[in-house]
Amino acid sequence: MRERLVVIGGDAAGMSAASQARRMRGPDELEIVAFERGHFTSYSACGIPYWVGGDVEDRDELIARTPEEHRARHIDVRLRTEVTEIDVERGRVRARDLESGAESWTSYDKLVIATGARPVRPDLPGIDAAGVHGVQTLDDGQALLDTLTRTEGRRAVVVGAGYIGVEMAEALINRGYEVTVVNRGREPMATLDPDMGRLVREAMTGLGITMVDDAEVTALPTGADGRVRAVATADAEYPADVVVLGIGVRPETTLARAAGLPLGDHGGLLTDRSMRVRGQENVWAGGDCVEVLDLVSGQLRHIPLGTHANKQGQIIGTNAGGGYATFPGVVGTAVSKVCDLEIARTGLREKDAHRVGLRFETVTIESTSRAGYYPDAAPMTVKMLAELGTGRLLGVQIVGREGAGKRVDIAAVALTAGMTVYQVAALDLGYAPPFSPVWDPVQVAARKAAAKLGAR
Amino acid sequence: MRERLVVIGGDAAGMSAASQARRMRGPDELEIVAFERGHFTSYSACGIPYWVGGDVEDRDELIARTPEEHRARHIDVRLRTEVTEIDVERGRVRARDLESGAESWTSYDKLVIATGARPVRPDLPGIDAAGVHGVQTLDDGQALLDTLTRTEGRRAVVVGAGYIGVEMAEALINRGYEVTVVNRGREPMATLDPDMGRLVREAMTGLGITMVDDAEVTALPTGADGRVRAVATADAEYPADVVVLGIGVRPETTLARAAGLPLGDHGGLLTDRSMRVRGQENVWAGGDCVEVLDLVSGQLRHIPLGTHANKQGQIIGTNAGGGYATFPGVVGTAVSKVCDLEIARTGLREKDAHRVGLRFETVTIESTSRAGYYPDAAPMTVKMLAELGTGRLLGVQIVGREGAGKRVDIAAVALTAGMTVYQVAALDLGYAPPFSPVWDPVQVAARKAAAKLGAR
Repeated sequence: MRERLVVIGGDAAGMSAASQARRMRGPDELEIVAFERGHFTSYSACGIPYWVGGDVEDRDELIARTPEEHRARHIDVRLRTEVTEIDVERGRVRARDLESGAESWTSYDKLVIATGARPVRPDLPGIDAAGVHGVQTLDDGQALLDTLTRTEGRRAVVVGAGYIGVEMAEALINRGYEVTVVNRGREPMATLDPDMGRLVREAMTGLGITMVDDAEVTALPTGADGRVRAVATADAEYPADVVVLGIGVRPETTLARAAGLPLGDHGGLLTDRSMRVRGQENVWAGGDCVEVLDLVSGQLRHIPLGTHANKQGQIIGTNAGGGYATFPGVVGTAVSKVCDLEIARTGLREKDAHRVGLRFETVTIESTSRAGYYPDAAPMTVKMLAELGTGRLLGVQIVGREGAGKRVDIAAVALTAGMTVYQVAALDLGYAPPFSPVWDPVQVAARKAAAKLGAR
Repeated sequence: MRERLVVIGGDAAGMSAASQARRMRGPDELEIVAFERGHFTSYSACGIPYWVGGDVEDRDELIARTPEEHRARHIDVRLRTEVTEIDVERGRVRARDLESGAESWTSYDKLVIATGARPVRPDLPGIDAAGVHGVQTLDDGQALLDTLTRTEGRRAVVVGAGYIGVEMAEALINRGYEVTVVNRGREPMATLDPDMGRLVREAMTGLGITMVDDAEVTALPTGADGRVRAVATADAEYPADVVVLGIGVRPETTLARAAGLPLGDHGGLLTDRSMRVRGQENVWAGGDCVEVLDLVSGQLRHIPLGTHANKQGQIIGTNAGGGYATFPGVVGTAVSKVCDLEIARTGLREKDAHRVGLRFETVTIESTSRAGYYPDAAPMTVKMLAELGTGRLLGVQIVGREGAGKRVDIAAVALTAGMTVYQVAALDLGYAPPFSPVWDPVQVAARKAAAKLGAR
């Protein structure tokens, strides 16, 4: 009997699941229907800042696979069609055609929920004014680009200094804007400890970006034309011809909640390691709408990143297609850049470790991307957390220039394997003068942490 | 009672051991004497190609710590002093002052053997002619530079296409030479499988380097002035104004052998994981003169690399200083570059896996250093070996451009942890469009290997 797999959400997780399920089972065995309320499928939302900034010329370059390409693989993609209800009892979803307004039910044998995340949009005066933009979707990116093209002024304010905020700061710098970043926290990049965030702030200031920290936005004042003209905080007003919101996102789980599916403390769907929704036989969920296990802390987190969405989608597709695969969890790796500044992190920050009740030691070292004597050896700062008593690696943060960011992968793999800093210091990593000092910077940190923890 | 630690060999392993021992114990507790037959201590032999090529201007930049700096830390460095005998029964070494020829015995409580490696120098007609150079030591590098400065001709032949050979090819290209690389093997970089070596050959040819493979050098013909004028093989003669030998090295264990210390199949000293020479209480050895455990194959290998020498020296210094540390072994990671070509490997090649009797699958994939749509995304080829049945990662080889080489670290850590390709595919690695495709190239390979091995 031919089964039907229904996918809600046509981006990374949903379409990876659909594609992988199709690899596992042909159209004679499995019908696949994917509902997407937007105009696009399988695009790189992470690429939007580079499209806005001009590094990527054409929007279509961000699209990994078009609806037509999916349809050619017998995946029935229905664009501009929003699922409005999930009925898990009867195994069906109700969807509305956003053009015609018509609604209808579609039954499923297997369901994939990949509804993504929705941007945090604080209830501020002016939040909906012209010139205020989010950057979650390709449609958002296009709207921002249209504003940038139409607007003569060259003052941009970015609200939020997380990775979207800093990436958008770079994009706007690249387009010739005077950029101000208004940030609620003490330092930018709250995914880092404040001492490392300070390095980011200093570097961003050095790039000509005005950094406003400890500042809560109170309003987005508009001009007589109704367009945004500034970002106001309790203390000051920052003139703005365009405002970009990079405040973060929350899991989009309205449908799942209404359907009675289990949600965690962060509002994301709860799944097992096969990405099956807890308590369900034939419902999977992945991407920005789920919570994932943090392998270092043992706690659930919400980490909206395309790389996880793709992997989880692939796992779902394998399982929904009758195979067996698991998504073991994450260690919290992230990397971003602002012009030539590279920022990376993995594992626990100090406050995470405190929250879990771990006792730890921290070290911070300076090193270089290449042997010190080699041309273009770029400085980097590495901070490392290690557990007292066991020596277990708990986290690494890196701020530096070219060659700094991806070094975090060494720590990411080591964290996944539960290695100690002694083991990290002894790792056989790639060394040659153009690539690394004789001790890789991550190992310089590990060695210092080992010395601080005492000999084994 | 004040003990005396004697170190034979004043480069990476020996002086790392001395420095670490000094950190552990002050001069009142431990006297440290280091014998070095050359003129320098603690220099980066790996940096010589970049000095010769002009990327590093001054020889002294390659010196991490001078004899004076060591002496300031109460390490009694005796330059131009060659140890000629080790007497383990009586705990003493005999050393000759190479200037005066005087010999004397020095007793030790603890001994570190760090005698390094000696270059393979085949017994060929002309091998000792003027214009024929090795590049093992700073003195070698200086001699080569003197020749390059004095010689008008611009034809260089490099004998050997391992990492020293390819790095010297770059150095000579950078100095404006026409470079020919004469290589005994079927493809350059015998540390890679031939299919990956072929990519290196093609890329080097594209850089304007003449690659001669499958060629055994039979003589180095000289001119009337006694200088080398060509490199001759059975089939041809390659005109040369300068010849650089990059044929490889063997452990320098003449002293150790004479002293009855245990040597392995590769001629290197055998140690335990604390780097203590097997069967000895108070003798350690590290660096290019020892054999190391390959954690993937479980066999002993000789891997002369500065990064291991430094680490082993540090382990020895900790242990000789009364602490406790171990060097667990290596996975065979190496990275090198020729102009903008990056070459990396870790773990087992096909022939290594066959030799150990492992059954495996291989995959080779093409990917890019950054998201495909991001500017300067550079192509790379990743080959992966995985064990049949278990899915255990066995080895990775990478040939690509900027951003390719250090990705091997992901595999190096995963190999150390004994991960499967399923685990590698699920790793939480740093992703953002400027840094990586959404699946890191190493994970693209792992995912393909997993698919080939079948679902778990």
